[in-house]
Amino acid sequence: MNICIMGFGAVGKGVAKVISIKKDELKKKYGLDLKITGVSDSSGAAISPDGLDPNLLLEVKEKEGRVSQYPEYGTDNLTGLNFLEKVDYDCLVEVTPTNIDDGEPARSHMLKAFKDGKDVVTSNKGPLALNFRELTEAALSNKVKFKYEASVGGAMPIINFAHDTLAGCNFESIFGILNGTTNYILSRMAKEGSAYEQTLKEAQEMGIAETDPTQDVEGLDAACKIVILANSIMNKDVSLKDVYINGISKINQESILLAKKEGYLIKLVAEASDDTLEVSPRLVKSGTPFSVDGTMNVATLNTDLAEDVTVVGRGAGSIETASAILSDLINIWKS
Amino acid sequence: MNICIMGFGAVGKGVAKVISIKKDELKKKYGLDLKITGVSDSSGAAISPDGLDPNLLLEVKEKEGRVSQYPEYGTDNLTGLNFLEKVDYDCLVEVTPTNIDDGEPARSHMLKAFKDGKDVVTSNKGPLALNFRELTEAALSNKVKFKYEASVGGAMPIINFAHDTLAGCNFESIFGILNGTTNYILSRMAKEGSAYEQTLKEAQEMGIAETDPTQDVEGLDAACKIVILANSIMNKDVSLKDVYINGISKINQESILLAKKEGYLIKLVAEASDDTLEVSPRLVKSGTPFSVDGTMNVATLNTDLAEDVTVVGRGAGSIETASAILSDLINIWKS
Repeated sequence: MNICIMGFGAVGKGVAKVISIKKDELKKKYGLDLKITGVSDSSGAAISPDGLDPNLLLEVKEKEGRVSQYPEYGTDNLTGLNFLEKVDYDCLVEVTPTNIDDGEPARSHMLKAFKDGKDVVTSNKGPLALNFRELTEAALSNKVKFKYEASVGGAMPIINFAHDTLAGCNFESIFGILNGTTNYILSRMAKEGSAYEQTLKEAQEMGIAETDPTQDVEGLDAACKIVILANSIMNKDVSLKDVYINGISKINQESILLAKKEGYLIKLVAEASDDTLEVSPRLVKSGTPFSVDGTMNVATLNTDLAEDVTVVGRGAGSIETASAILSDLINIWKS
Repeated sequence: MNICIMGFGAVGKGVAKVISIKKDELKKKYGLDLKITGVSDSSGAAISPDGLDPNLLLEVKEKEGRVSQYPEYGTDNLTGLNFLEKVDYDCLVEVTPTNIDDGEPARSHMLKAFKDGKDVVTSNKGPLALNFRELTEAALSNKVKFKYEASVGGAMPIINFAHDTLAGCNFESIFGILNGTTNYILSRMAKEGSAYEQTLKEAQEMGIAETDPTQDVEGLDAACKIVILANSIMNKDVSLKDVYINGISKINQESILLAKKEGYLIKLVAEASDDTLEVSPRLVKSGTPFSVDGTMNVATLNTDLAEDVTVVGRGAGSIETASAILSDLINIWKS
């Protein structure tokens, strides 16, 4: 199976690392020989039909800052759709930076891959939150596979879990803590009695919150994810603009203490149900799966036959997210 | 797809109910026409190559106490291996009462089905906890499918989750709260300050604990389940006798309060790791998935790539357990 990776940031590098670690095991366990025939980043690409060495890719990116410096097979300025024209691949791993304004350039990359009859695996929330039906229908009409487990909650696998493991169930609603940064901030505020601004600052210093934390703390990241879950698991046809969004920046110690007194915690909860599509701070009870601390993600599926089923896992991380991409690749290979 | 159901207690009836509810949906969604060509209980059977009506089966069992009273197609005294000789089926749903002494008669039923080239889906812990390798190897050598998601934690799907959804990961250890009855008793003792004996009695009155609660409170049920998880997910070769087992009957209010003071709860935890196979009361921290209340089951997989991934769900219930069996049937059909 030949894959090409577009985007070589945290997730793309994670994919290379994971392939390097698992290469022999994948051959033995699944008869799967994963070959990276091309990688592109914002400034260029490396392409070899015989396969690029994942460790050398990581080394070049680390030292030179761009994959086009890969010895012999590197090319400057070959990116985007032009890259896809040149590379020989079976499956595109689309992990370019996410864009929640128009989903580009990831959307165009994926549409081209579908049109060319290629499978796609992605962690890219933007295009999925904006153009879900366009993408899934393009995959369907071109009879190729499209998997995107890593787009929601990195290592909290919920989409394939719903589709495959719970194949006998229908899903009536989904509740989730889908953003690790805000869960971390709220957990620390509850434990330490610290103020919002101070806790955010510390989370930024620790690398848990980004320099511009808007997408996380204002609930946009969680909103993208609940849209993806609503579309893929509940068969809705919704987009980011349909979500009622309320972030955590106005949560203060008074409200946290008030909740605590009655045995509740405040969490940023995303909900998709028949009449609600919402991200907002909510009270959750201690002793339920939603009371988990730290950067963890949680999603509960309310099913018709099995009542509530919940998955808890790490929402982010380079290797963690890459593990979801690897599982998608294996499942494409097996099916 | 023709199935026969052996055992028509809570789980068997749940399977019939679920098939009755989902019949049209399964056809539409998966092209799957599930036909029940035979059902046996301890006193007889009903067999029809054209398919039995699940609602009539439930009605007959409810009114007459045995499926052999099914009009036209019922037969007294046709059970066990003789039943399997007579019925025309693709997949055996083995849900006879579990037996943790020698796994019989379920073990023989499944071995015969494998030998006859039939797939098997089961919720039957006993034979899996005692003869795991014998059964999985018999399925493998006869090139048939063998699925047993329902044997561990009814509607807390963890086995297929590990095998399929987390296909890219290896599993280094498993921790679980795998018995709903004991979790219910311990949760109530912690919340209400009640004594063990009193709480057990109330759980029995509510139908949550059985009249003879030994298998639950002494940890045997959880031990069977951790054996199945260790064998199927961690590729071990262990049996019930290899588990160090310690139940909850000696837990008192003093120990619960002592734990509470330090922010801990006492739960009956099952562990499978490199050097440990154990069921025993343990301290778990509030704010982790293991702090869940009531009859819920939890299992955490410690993975090589995605750190800890946890599933929480209902551990028992007729429809809930049947939903896991249905998902197994669908996945056999799809593969």
